[in-house]
Amino acid sequence: MTIEAQLIARLRRIASDPAARGLLDDAALLDGLVITHDTIAEGVHFLPSDPAASVGWKLVAVNLSDLAAKGASPAGALLSLTIGADTAWDDEFLTGVEHACESYALPLIGGDTIALPPGATRVLGLTAIGRAGTNVPSRSGARPGDTLWVVGSLGDAAAGLRQLIADSKAHGLLVESYRRPVPQLGAGQVLSEHATAMMDISDGLLLDASRLAEASDCGADIALDLLPLSRAFVAEVGHDLASRLFAATGGDDYALLAALPAECNPLILPLPSGTTMTRIGTMTAGSPDVRLFDGVVPIPLPETLGYEHRGRIASPVADRP
Amino acid sequence: MTIEAQLIARLRRIASDPAARGLLDDAALLDGLVITHDTIAEGVHFLPSDPAASVGWKLVAVNLSDLAAKGASPAGALLSLTIGADTAWDDEFLTGVEHACESYALPLIGGDTIALPPGATRVLGLTAIGRAGTNVPSRSGARPGDTLWVVGSLGDAAAGLRQLIADSKAHGLLVESYRRPVPQLGAGQVLSEHATAMMDISDGLLLDASRLAEASDCGADIALDLLPLSRAFVAEVGHDLASRLFAATGGDDYALLAALPAECNPLILPLPSGTTMTRIGTMTAGSPDVRLFDGVVPIPLPETLGYEHRGRIASPVADRP
Repeated sequence: MTIEAQLIARLRRIASDPAARGLLDDAALLDGLVITHDTIAEGVHFLPSDPAASVGWKLVAVNLSDLAAKGASPAGALLSLTIGADTAWDDEFLTGVEHACESYALPLIGGDTIALPPGATRVLGLTAIGRAGTNVPSRSGARPGDTLWVVGSLGDAAAGLRQLIADSKAHGLLVESYRRPVPQLGAGQVLSEHATAMMDISDGLLLDASRLAEASDCGADIALDLLPLSRAFVAEVGHDLASRLFAATGGDDYALLAALPAECNPLILPLPSGTTMTRIGTMTAGSPDVRLFDGVVPIPLPETLGYEHRGRIASPVADRP
Repeated sequence: MTIEAQLIARLRRIASDPAARGLLDDAALLDGLVITHDTIAEGVHFLPSDPAASVGWKLVAVNLSDLAAKGASPAGALLSLTIGADTAWDDEFLTGVEHACESYALPLIGGDTIALPPGATRVLGLTAIGRAGTNVPSRSGARPGDTLWVVGSLGDAAAGLRQLIADSKAHGLLVESYRRPVPQLGAGQVLSEHATAMMDISDGLLLDASRLAEASDCGADIALDLLPLSRAFVAEVGHDLASRLFAATGGDDYALLAALPAECNPLILPLPSGTTMTRIGTMTAGSPDVRLFDGVVPIPLPETLGYEHRGRIASPVADRP
């Protein structure tokens, strides 16, 4: 076990309180509030060349995506703002934070500002708090026979990041998907009443689905040919098997992954207009792993299932050597 | 107005929700929960030579001190853990976090781990959540005629930091006060039922008292000769006027500052045994400033009232140029 994996295993032992939900979830649940915290670092979660306003937007959106996955309604946020030498950057960053908070009715209710030493890497954090609905699905409730669904499309952000790495001046829908993810709050609230398990897809579908499968102690069969790909993605990357694997492992999607009882048809639920909801697979009684198919043809799992740099504390997959 | 002050003024405008309490408080109040977030950075809030376990302890303790100031009982914490190249440091840091969480019955219920790029300054954060008592004193409720009290002693941590800056191998009670502050949770819970205003003293008594005075729109008369100084402080620094001003502006005390109605005698309240509670002054009907006295002799305010690097978001004093 690596020292990093040991650290995470240790955190999981420390966090023995029921509110921690085994640290296997996107968020903690305390007195009817769903609470999550995500930290982002320059060079890890955003590019130094990304517009500061988009970094502010993204910090809020990725936290709201965790609330969406639990079906919670935004109630408040605490910002951890680090002020560097370039205060114009910080000001633009706040514009993005403000825009996202207004867009999703998330009141900023507190936080902390600190000055960083000169030359320090920017590290910014947000704690988002939501009010729980009647049911707060965890990652661990899926059962064999449940159907597996994705809300949103996959691979757009990864394709946008690839464009930006090739050309920092790239722009367009895919770059926007990378820089300004849209949390699926409305869909999450509707689905949370029915889902046996739900989480957001932040690190790549295959990695996140394997986490859901492991937490639920079920297998997950996923049909690559059913993945929801946008027209922009298909135009840029394609739709062959390699493109689909790219979409399934790219990360930064902030789509939702939901397991639903077989008898539940989400397409007749009152989802927000414009919601794209796609059945991509089935939970199985097999070992708690993901199996991939292209139509009926089994496809070997790629070596890398997703983006592991961001490890939610003690996510089970992070324990793998 | 500096750009930094503009940023903070802007944050205050963004945070218009009642739960934000005008961002003038130590913590937000939402659905009966008191929520606070503090971030600490290497070279700003702790020394690279500080033992990692003490940094972990301190991160938890400074957040608990915010809960103490609102009279809240610890209910849960979310850790923002950044993993650097030196994972042995991170492991020891976690030992300190765990020790403090256990000592104050604060369950770790979630958070985030991220890997920092090589060479990045360590930035670590914690969100602490407490259950509110029957009354949650803000900074802004003090009235002329209220008495002003300090729970704990002042200057110990600043004296310890001064020792460490002179000799990184320094040790003893003062260094321990700097590295392992003790949140006044029990006293905060008892006092919150009576206090008209309360906050923790993290940035120096004079700076924090001026914030309380400004938020309450009262003056505050403080008697330097009444400051609670420990024997260790007096032995190391002295007890003359300069030493008292050092204690009043040093910061990192994590004592409590409470305004109480004149008719309330806190010394007959059921405070935890060993609590040191000292009357240091009176709130007045004057302009919202601090006035200093040594006995009956007025003393001019020092140029620096405290440690301003750590600015709680939109603390009013941070607006001063």
